[in-house]
Amino acid sequence: MDGGGEVAWRFGAAKPELAAASAQIKMRALVARVYGCLDKSDPRAVVPLASGDPTPFPCFRTSAAAEQAVTAAVASGKHNGYPSATGVAEACSAVATYLSRYLPYELSADDIVLTAGCNHGIEIMMAVLATPGSNVLLPRPGYPLYEARAALSGLEFRHYDLLPEKGWEVDVRGVEALADDNTVAVVIVNPNNPSGAVYSFQHLAEIAETARKLGIMVISDEIYEHFVFGSKPFVPMGVFGEIAPVVTLGGISKRWMVPGWKLGWIAMTDPKGVLREKKILDSIIIYRGISVDPAAIVQGAVPQIIANTDETFFTNVMKVMRETAEMCYQKLKATKGVTCHHKPEGSMFVMVKLDMSCFDGIDDDIDFCCKLAKEESVVISPGSGLCMENWLRITFAVDPLLLEDGLERVTSFCLRHASPIMN
Amino acid sequence: MDGGGEVAWRFGAAKPELAAASAQIKMRALVARVYGCLDKSDPRAVVPLASGDPTPFPCFRTSAAAEQAVTAAVASGKHNGYPSATGVAEACSAVATYLSRYLPYELSADDIVLTAGCNHGIEIMMAVLATPGSNVLLPRPGYPLYEARAALSGLEFRHYDLLPEKGWEVDVRGVEALADDNTVAVVIVNPNNPSGAVYSFQHLAEIAETARKLGIMVISDEIYEHFVFGSKPFVPMGVFGEIAPVVTLGGISKRWMVPGWKLGWIAMTDPKGVLREKKILDSIIIYRGISVDPAAIVQGAVPQIIANTDETFFTNVMKVMRETAEMCYQKLKATKGVTCHHKPEGSMFVMVKLDMSCFDGIDDDIDFCCKLAKEESVVISPGSGLCMENWLRITFAVDPLLLEDGLERVTSFCLRHASPIMN
Repeated sequence: MDGGGEVAWRFGAAKPELAAASAQIKMRALVARVYGCLDKSDPRAVVPLASGDPTPFPCFRTSAAAEQAVTAAVASGKHNGYPSATGVAEACSAVATYLSRYLPYELSADDIVLTAGCNHGIEIMMAVLATPGSNVLLPRPGYPLYEARAALSGLEFRHYDLLPEKGWEVDVRGVEALADDNTVAVVIVNPNNPSGAVYSFQHLAEIAETARKLGIMVISDEIYEHFVFGSKPFVPMGVFGEIAPVVTLGGISKRWMVPGWKLGWIAMTDPKGVLREKKILDSIIIYRGISVDPAAIVQGAVPQIIANTDETFFTNVMKVMRETAEMCYQKLKATKGVTCHHKPEGSMFVMVKLDMSCFDGIDDDIDFCCKLAKEESVVISPGSGLCMENWLRITFAVDPLLLEDGLERVTSFCLRHASPIMN
Repeated sequence: MDGGGEVAWRFGAAKPELAAASAQIKMRALVARVYGCLDKSDPRAVVPLASGDPTPFPCFRTSAAAEQAVTAAVASGKHNGYPSATGVAEACSAVATYLSRYLPYELSADDIVLTAGCNHGIEIMMAVLATPGSNVLLPRPGYPLYEARAALSGLEFRHYDLLPEKGWEVDVRGVEALADDNTVAVVIVNPNNPSGAVYSFQHLAEIAETARKLGIMVISDEIYEHFVFGSKPFVPMGVFGEIAPVVTLGGISKRWMVPGWKLGWIAMTDPKGVLREKKILDSIIIYRGISVDPAAIVQGAVPQIIANTDETFFTNVMKVMRETAEMCYQKLKATKGVTCHHKPEGSMFVMVKLDMSCFDGIDDDIDFCCKLAKEESVVISPGSGLCMENWLRITFAVDPLLLEDGLERVTSFCLRHASPIMN
């Protein structure tokens, strides 16, 4: 088609910030490319080990209580209108009480801002921190939306490493070395996506002391809060809020298995009130006020979602996750050419290192994933999407039987492509 | 509390764009101030004529079909996961088919991007158009979120006037005079918030021809689509998409009376494909991909919300709106000191001019609203919040009996404060 006849339309220039932001979402393009390699003629089921969405599997269906809570909120007719600027009051109170269970102090509803999912919380924090010249420290490997939203907001970001040989702990020395007078925050993700690590009380205390020393806040991404099935308990970063101010990002997406409901929160876990005094909360509320709202029918359901979901729902889900994480770890450990440094103890992901010398005719992690998809109908994320070349990110939040099948296909793929010297 | 002891926290500088954006939301602060003037000791019901949220009133309850559709989407368990980047495919198709009913050409699902409410659509468009040096033309009076999101994105905006004496039509000559080589779009709102005007086929055609002449796109805010109850039918701007490319913003918020469900859309009503060719659609999709999603349980319900809501629901709602609009117009016409140029024929609002010379001891529109709230427990928005000094913005999307009561209080307030020379 023509561009509208003879008219010289004036719009259509590229927006630099948008280009910069989209460049940060390499992972999506790579996963799409891997899906494109699938062989449609393969009669076997596709095994989706790339993105962490367990909701298609019956064993990961959300709690009946959660579904009933939303249905009741709709039926009440009370949640069709505009919710208040920071969220439905009862929902903010319920979240404050819920988070306070695991903290040495009490949060109030005023410490909570509800968001349209945790991604919205990330958007808000990257925008609020984007003051002229400031920079934020982000983990590598991490979650690319941080980079994308920082780029869009014009906030400089610097990568510190997670240390695989130390159970993917934060490289605290590296954080200190990266920080300068313009550093305003360090982001940590715990339980960790993509490594499956769960940080110990001692490690979190060390991070807090480092933040205090540097004079920066900690943004603790706890979207996988309580999503743990190993030896370590989940410890909220807010426990150390007296040492350094902590902004906690969370939501019901993972623990309740409803990422599509888009209900998250930003919690000021900051007993000394530094974030209030420094007007960070004011900025969050201003931004939130000109941003979107989470659906009121979900906000209205939050108190009942939290109150009425039985502990057995969580224990049953964690039981399956423990099984699939263990299976994933054992099968990969037994596979030549791949190394899994650390058995995942939380979140839905594990990082696996490829030893390219063990393979014949496979160039790198991207090539590995493309050929695996083509030959075995198993879809895995190339680590390159997270600046981790020749690594793989694998989710085990999949029906156990399907996961077992998929992992066996990975093993036979690796055997088939083993370099001669290895055999 | 102290700021964390001896620590010099490095964060907390003001973010200029955020300050600029918040400054555009004067109206909210003014309405809050008016609410603050209410006399708690007044036994009468507060009459809320400031913000257009009809959902608290039983006569404006959404359709049973809409509630059932969401309940079914929740019960299906099929909409708990991540929806696709531009929206659930069936929902996009349903919206495309719905909008195509009123267009001379067919839209496809690929022309639709679902948003978390119409405000989200505004956010996306202001961000996408914010290329270096560009500017957008916005109506005065208008909807302040446009100014706020443009300011946050660094997009220059210029105000053209709506002409009260011409039924609040767009000052097309003014639009031409404002535009320059860097102008990329003109925003129109039809049916119009805050004036209640509904634009004729001829006027919309004239706007399209002007846009073509200037080489700019039209962003047509049609969140009040089909929300008309006067002599003029609703004509979608997309009807003129052959003349100039039109981006239509809409959603279910108003017509279905569920603003809190946060389901909107951006539609490329652009039969010549200019927006595609100019990569505007690509930019929208990139931004949407790093932004939030509407709740999947609402997206999943959209096909049934549209298919199963009976026409009688809409006709009944419009019957009440026609009654309240007429009542509002007649009562205000009979009141000394206020002029209502134009009987509202659509949306939920009307603009009313104050003749300050008719009042004694009232300084301006803000003072009028504050004293009215204090003495009569009626809350009205001062026009100053929309750069319309000594005007009022009144909503008639209120239960008819409560509205009648409120308007009588306004009349007695005006009489009581009439300047002596008028009596």
